[in-house]
Amino acid sequence: MRAARYYDRKDIRIEDIPEPELQPGTVAIDVAWCGICGTDLHEYLEGPIFIPPQGHPHPISGEDAPVTIGHEFSGTITALGDGVTDLEVGQNVVVEPYIIGDDVDTSPGEDYQLSPNMNFIGLGGRGGGLSEKIVVQRRWVHPIGDIPLDQAALIEPLSVGHHAFVRSGARAGQVAIIGGAGPIGLLTAAVLRAEGLSVYISELSEARKQMALDTGVADAVLDPREGDVAERVRELTDGKGADVGFECSSVPVVLDMLLDAVRPGGVIVNVSIWGHKPEVDMPKLVLKEIDLRGTIGYAGDHPATIDLVASGKLDLAPFITGRITLDGLVSEGFDQLINNNEHHVKIIVDPNA
Amino acid sequence: MRAARYYDRKDIRIEDIPEPELQPGTVAIDVAWCGICGTDLHEYLEGPIFIPPQGHPHPISGEDAPVTIGHEFSGTITALGDGVTDLEVGQNVVVEPYIIGDDVDTSPGEDYQLSPNMNFIGLGGRGGGLSEKIVVQRRWVHPIGDIPLDQAALIEPLSVGHHAFVRSGARAGQVAIIGGAGPIGLLTAAVLRAEGLSVYISELSEARKQMALDTGVADAVLDPREGDVAERVRELTDGKGADVGFECSSVPVVLDMLLDAVRPGGVIVNVSIWGHKPEVDMPKLVLKEIDLRGTIGYAGDHPATIDLVASGKLDLAPFITGRITLDGLVSEGFDQLINNNEHHVKIIVDPNA
Repeated sequence: MRAARYYDRKDIRIEDIPEPELQPGTVAIDVAWCGICGTDLHEYLEGPIFIPPQGHPHPISGEDAPVTIGHEFSGTITALGDGVTDLEVGQNVVVEPYIIGDDVDTSPGEDYQLSPNMNFIGLGGRGGGLSEKIVVQRRWVHPIGDIPLDQAALIEPLSVGHHAFVRSGARAGQVAIIGGAGPIGLLTAAVLRAEGLSVYISELSEARKQMALDTGVADAVLDPREGDVAERVRELTDGKGADVGFECSSVPVVLDMLLDAVRPGGVIVNVSIWGHKPEVDMPKLVLKEIDLRGTIGYAGDHPATIDLVASGKLDLAPFITGRITLDGLVSEGFDQLINNNEHHVKIIVDPNA
Repeated sequence: MRAARYYDRKDIRIEDIPEPELQPGTVAIDVAWCGICGTDLHEYLEGPIFIPPQGHPHPISGEDAPVTIGHEFSGTITALGDGVTDLEVGQNVVVEPYIIGDDVDTSPGEDYQLSPNMNFIGLGGRGGGLSEKIVVQRRWVHPIGDIPLDQAALIEPLSVGHHAFVRSGARAGQVAIIGGAGPIGLLTAAVLRAEGLSVYISELSEARKQMALDTGVADAVLDPREGDVAERVRELTDGKGADVGFECSSVPVVLDMLLDAVRPGGVIVNVSIWGHKPEVDMPKLVLKEIDLRGTIGYAGDHPATIDLVASGKLDLAPFITGRITLDGLVSEGFDQLINNNEHHVKIIVDPNA
């Protein structure tokens, strides 16, 4: 079968590799669509980061580069391994793409995403969504009902937004301010709106501002060049400030803005990945008793996230901004996202086309 | 009556001023002991900070410098204003020294410490504990039962530690790591031990390390020069890391250490006051899903704090390291704390001596 294999920085090859073998307790899936993630881009441009470099196999998967990439994917079950009795061939599914130690309790409600050496299918080994087929442990397979398979490829990043929402403790009727309208900012906004919050987004880029409006995830999009965003948020909330903030930009001034824009006693969830240690306005965090919370991945979020989409509360269609084949992965996918980033939310790949 | 009056930086005068008048709804108190706080020192050396400068009256108290200082005090009720029926003359009390707007709900359970223009009795006006007498609104007076009046002067800073404990969500049986064994670090440690946690303290100063041992608040005192503190905490916790951390030093490397020393999913409460914006290891906060929480003052903490001491679970006597009179306030109080800081936890002042 054909698969996108990561060898090293700037070296991704579309190759023919053997099909994965069905094992007891696993599920064989024909991949329908696989999204390209910011993490994939980082691996391509600056990696290997999550990907275990050649000669340094991952302690859980035992694999090193080259590895098949792609962790945001949907597909259809083609076969069930021994002992898998609660799924059916022909069912459409998504995968919660974790590589987690066998000794870790991965029950819903456990923080298994924080376990030692956690990695992701499609980065740390065990195949990936940018290939025709994949075999995955039953635990990580989630049926999606009637959700279209193209939209379902976005369930994984949407689960990141859902987990950030859960981490925030936010409730329906509250007000959220989001810093940054990149893919994760927009998908977090979509979850918050579907959960009944009012959502304001701060964004500089004209293209991303337009995307926030087009996808309908924001009650208002605030441009920092048009006035102090925190001040605007207070005006929009009768002077109170937002209940929750979400840092989705990795930009220090945006984090500062959020510390200013949330109300005393408010919560800020940091969803972005920082490449350095930013200066943080700790005096403000202290005097306002703000909670600044980290969030990474998801844990037990997939069923609720799938429900948000299946119930019609959240429409993923507007977030798909490109469809390509495996052969176009670098030229029409990675290069497009690098050079034309602000005009895209999610490019999805059909590995069977 | 005699009172310590703050005029300006390095200008504190012991003066004769009129006695405060009893008003309806207020309580007249003869001050027994008043502690000197780090905040008082900052006002003396670098202020005015909380103190409203001359010509700039505080929006709630309407007062500006000179103001009577001192906010950590105990005393005995001498008279009750009209309408105060649930206290008695002769009762020993402490004061929760808030200046808070009349429109704010100050019920227990409300975050009234975060209300606009909040300030403190003994900084923002309304008299202070470094005077013979004070008159205070009933709401802020807390009876202390049989707690000795000298120890009771430490209830106020102990309430800061109690509030930090509440903010942390920590429970009996958990493990805490405290960065810094200054007065607030030690008193926070005392609360945590009384609440049933194991407590480790990181500290460089020999004198403060000794103080942590002498006051019996730490299961172990860890010196960063004798090995990586986070590593030591993991060794002491079977590799897990601490459940909660408390930043009590305003030193960036200490905050970094705490982010390393707490377990994934752990909580860090920032109790210290920062004079600048430090670099924070956000990558670690994100990947470990740490909650970094601000805490300021107290709100509804005094009754529980008083109970900890009254019940005998927490002994405040070892934290009193000096006793002086009002005349010695600067020479034996402030100057001693400035020049010999590491050998003191709390110097208390008898304004009637």
